[in-house]
Amino acid sequence: MPQTELSTLPTPALLIDAQRMAGNVDRMNQAMGRLGVPLRPHLKTVKNAALARRMLAGHPGGATVSTLAEADYFFAAGIEDLTYAVGLAPGKLGEVARRQRAGMKLTLLLDAPATARALVEESKRLGERFQVLIELDADGERGGLDPADPALIETAGLLVEGGQHLAGVLVHAGGSYACRDEAALIAMAEHERRTAVDAAQRLRQEGFLIDTVSVGSTPTALFARDLSGVSEVRAGVYALMDRVMASLGVCALDDIAVSVLTEVIGHRPESGELLVDAGWTALSRDLGSTRGRSAGDYGLVCDLEGAPLAPELLVLGTHQEHGRVGRSDGQALDLDAFPIGRRLRILPNHACATAGQFERFWWLDQGQVEAMERCRGW
Amino acid sequence: MPQTELSTLPTPALLIDAQRMAGNVDRMNQAMGRLGVPLRPHLKTVKNAALARRMLAGHPGGATVSTLAEADYFFAAGIEDLTYAVGLAPGKLGEVARRQRAGMKLTLLLDAPATARALVEESKRLGERFQVLIELDADGERGGLDPADPALIETAGLLVEGGQHLAGVLVHAGGSYACRDEAALIAMAEHERRTAVDAAQRLRQEGFLIDTVSVGSTPTALFARDLSGVSEVRAGVYALMDRVMASLGVCALDDIAVSVLTEVIGHRPESGELLVDAGWTALSRDLGSTRGRSAGDYGLVCDLEGAPLAPELLVLGTHQEHGRVGRSDGQALDLDAFPIGRRLRILPNHACATAGQFERFWWLDQGQVEAMERCRGW
Repeated sequence: MPQTELSTLPTPALLIDAQRMAGNVDRMNQAMGRLGVPLRPHLKTVKNAALARRMLAGHPGGATVSTLAEADYFFAAGIEDLTYAVGLAPGKLGEVARRQRAGMKLTLLLDAPATARALVEESKRLGERFQVLIELDADGERGGLDPADPALIETAGLLVEGGQHLAGVLVHAGGSYACRDEAALIAMAEHERRTAVDAAQRLRQEGFLIDTVSVGSTPTALFARDLSGVSEVRAGVYALMDRVMASLGVCALDDIAVSVLTEVIGHRPESGELLVDAGWTALSRDLGSTRGRSAGDYGLVCDLEGAPLAPELLVLGTHQEHGRVGRSDGQALDLDAFPIGRRLRILPNHACATAGQFERFWWLDQGQVEAMERCRGW
Repeated sequence: MPQTELSTLPTPALLIDAQRMAGNVDRMNQAMGRLGVPLRPHLKTVKNAALARRMLAGHPGGATVSTLAEADYFFAAGIEDLTYAVGLAPGKLGEVARRQRAGMKLTLLLDAPATARALVEESKRLGERFQVLIELDADGERGGLDPADPALIETAGLLVEGGQHLAGVLVHAGGSYACRDEAALIAMAEHERRTAVDAAQRLRQEGFLIDTVSVGSTPTALFARDLSGVSEVRAGVYALMDRVMASLGVCALDDIAVSVLTEVIGHRPESGELLVDAGWTALSRDLGSTRGRSAGDYGLVCDLEGAPLAPELLVLGTHQEHGRVGRSDGQALDLDAFPIGRRLRILPNHACATAGQFERFWWLDQGQVEAMERCRGW
């Protein structure tokens, strides 16, 4: 490990470890190989073109994004087939049309007749057709239709009759993040697959041509036993992994490729705690669950090699530029072991949220450290 | 209000209302005028030079920052006297020296003999002297020494004997954010003042020259009844205000000058909820308390004029690019009143955290909308 460079980089800094990421990417590729389904990686976690190319190697080349800013950034890097996997805001269709005219293949997502009507109306106004996936719901967490909802056929009909290209269906089982054992993950993967395949079948029975049957989340992608009927898998966090994934058993702690480098800036002798220069501007306030937790854990503290110092050594609290580090069991730290100026690495709860706080990162590869950019904004 | 522009700006977008900010700035200036103490505004909330100038008008011109990136940005905008109000990471002293040589007056903060020793050592190595404030603790929340702690005198001695300029003392009663009534806020302001004045007095008794006696947080600045012995007040969030400040009674909801513009992208008929295109990338995951809450409230939903639609209408959950909007009392929304494509504004819990997610904002001034930049990073 490049300890010398890590002792001089400006802190707080986002670090991504090349070897760990390579292992994670290999593992996903092996899973996809076994299942016989290609990957359309979600690039919202890495938000960097060089890392995206590592995720795309061996797959057809299409990717998934969550903002138009990501679409622009990756299109400029040569990734031209992009699924914009957030329910459509009709106000963005002018911007979508502009990108299509520049050569981007941008596939949109919607889940209701009302949105389909708004899209068809804008299509006419703009003189531009759109390609669309219908979003399905597998977990009640976000958007999407139930495959048995009559609105599925109605939405498809409105799109096709309105001259749009209905590409297929898409589902994201984000509820897999709440699964608590392997059996639940396997069952969630099968439920996600079945949701998509059932909807595609219903649409085909009604005469619609359905090419794309898109599923995915990192846990379901890695725990699926069968993906018959699925045409592509989307996953993103798998490349970096995080403490949420480790807590689900989806990875080990030492698979986590992303961390935040920080420096000890103070001691709190009365509580046996440290202050470090990574606050919520660096770590985010993400507690590692979409449902929220009662606070008190913003990251796991590691040495400069990236190895946890103790399972109980956490970032217990964050201010804007301060992190408060201590033991979750209430024991005081030996502060002499953490002198002012010592550097530490923090493993994040949620890779997307922590990485999202940074506009650049440092790529650690075989002892070399290279600065890399991240795309930001919308 | 510029409803036309708000119907076409790309979403999600950060909005700052000029009239509301002017009212907030006037109110703070009046409070400082009554108390007879100048303001050294904290610029970490606005992170924009034009807004900083509005906060600095009528004050001596010094400001407070929380990162070196802010220091660089505001220095380039002509604000040369900057207090870097985060406990010093010794690893940053080379960067501090470089800025001093470029003409920046950057005052540092530390709270321990060990940090003072590290600073003196780096000072010798770099051939550069530093100006330093000693941080005091008024609330047990973060860093800082108790005025009675012998380490106060020891730290001051190490700095002065080591050839540094001891500028004075600084305290931030962040604990004021947990005060629950006016009496508690008034008492906290007096406790903050007394902490700083007591420490300055102790240092002066030991023969140290103490010019700067710096206190501040928005609640204590606005609720202080007397600031005798204080040389400057620091506050930042007062310019924009937020729901935390409103919940403390420090401002009214319609004083909040910052909001996030978003668009309805989906309906959840089964729960009577909406999806909007502002997720945690836009709103942050800040629940409005440094101690954390049990989740379920990421912002208050308003119409395009910025008026809350109902006290119970909240962002109940966030994903990366999705916000889930519903009523906190569990009642279903009338979804017909929120068609796909309708635009809303969200009042944030914590102005610093939500604004911190954006690299630009839209300044709403008398019907005009102007794009403005925000400084980012470290």
